Amino acid sequence: MMKTPTAAMLVIGDEILSGRTRDANMHHLAQVLTSAGIDLKEVRIVSDEAPAIIDAVNALRKSHSHVITSGGIGPTHDDITADSIASAFGVGIDVRDDAKAILQERYDRMGVELNEARLRMARIPDGATLIENPVSGAPGFTLENVHVMAGVPAVFQAMVAQIIPLLDGGPPVLSQTIRVEKPEGELAGALGDIARVHPDVSIGSYPFIENGAYGSNIVVRGRDGKAVGQAIQAVAQIFGITT
Amino acid sequence: MMKTPTAAMLVIGDEILSGRTRDANMHHLAQVLTSAGIDLKEVRIVSDEAPAIIDAVNALRKSHSHVITSGGIGPTHDDITADSIASAFGVGIDVRDDAKAILQERYDRMGVELNEARLRMARIPDGATLIENPVSGAPGFTLENVHVMAGVPAVFQAMVAQIIPLLDGGPPVLSQTIRVEKPEGELAGALGDIARVHPDVSIGSYPFIENGAYGSNIVVRGRDGKAVGQAIQAVAQIFGITT
Repeated sequence: MMKTPTAAMLVIGDEILSGRTRDANMHHLAQVLTSAGIDLKEVRIVSDEAPAIIDAVNALRKSHSHVITSGGIGPTHDDITADSIASAFGVGIDVRDDAKAILQERYDRMGVELNEARLRMARIPDGATLIENPVSGAPGFTLENVHVMAGVPAVFQAMVAQIIPLLDGGPPVLSQTIRVEKPEGELAGALGDIARVHPDVSIGSYPFIENGAYGSNIVVRGRDGKAVGQAIQAVAQIFGITT
Repeated sequence: MMKTPTAAMLVIGDEILSGRTRDANMHHLAQVLTSAGIDLKEVRIVSDEAPAIIDAVNALRKSHSHVITSGGIGPTHDDITADSIASAFGVGIDVRDDAKAILQERYDRMGVELNEARLRMARIPDGATLIENPVSGAPGFTLENVHVMAGVPAVFQAMVAQIIPLLDGGPPVLSQTIRVEKPEGELAGALGDIARVHPDVSIGSYPFIENGAYGSNIVVRGRDGKAVGQAIQAVAQIFGITT
């Protein structure tokens, strides 16, 4: 059996760790990767500090097929992602002509000066390929298996849409859900038994409280539609639910 | 100067990595920690797999003053957090009398059987102290600097409220924000200059697009209210904004 490609996400930004803003990109990426048959196995959120970014990138790129980063590639002094990625790979970084040309063309059209700060956004690590930014110009880039993207959700999503078709994927993960109006503790023994006889799927149980009553959503996930169907039938049958 | 206590959060759950649900606990914890003067420096989200949990716990507990985990402490077969924490610390784990008594009392009152699955929730690593769960009974626990809590938001929040007063904190981080109706690229040079002459604060710039126009929120953060005030005045002055 082919090993399923795995992915990790690295979110760079003090604003999320301080509670100032909520991350909006992780949920989007998780859904897109799942549809593409790529398992998102880990997410790390680190602060705008070079050692934190470098350590995380180096750990994740060795453990996963693909690493996607978001945040820290703008024009300001705290946008240090590109330089940190270059350090992580031990390669140089400088303003690159093709990236500069993209910015120049855009700012000329807007009648805006390509000043020193904006030119920082054309700093690209040696050996990287650019990821187009149809929203605001400044490109992301790919270096080996690391894909570096902006944190602004509209830009992040546009960049993700471009790189996903280029990534090795597998058959997409299928899932089916059954809602059971019983607390998890009533279901757990039977679910464990079902999980043991259906090893090709993963069975998750997600408890909720609604109008003071306990219930659980039982989710069966797997790449083999027949196996998912058989397991969900087993769940339905044991709890007396008609599907 | 006293070293500021740092914290890390570990979120355990396939349902977030698959895009099925959005994490609701990180943003809450980030805000509570910031108010308590504890820097949240890193968040990791890992799947419901023992090696992933063990590796993350061991990395984070060595690097940070406090580690808070959420998820994976229910009654079902995929709730493996408690056992993984015990493995990470190299200690034993078993059903503990005080935890069992809490569950027994609760289920007796509800007229519900304390079955084998529910009894799993009384499995507590050796040497841990319990964290009360006023919402649904099953306790969390603290082992050294690792605080293990449920993922259900109502329970997570109740547990966080209990442990925060017990953690070493520092003076809370203060922040002030100025909204500038200019794109980041116009502000970046000046902000970098201000950041250099105000080393005691951190200055972040968060771009937005509103009605097709670019703007930026400039956030100054720091523990010294006077330093924050001086830096925000400098930002206001340079961009001609009256505060």
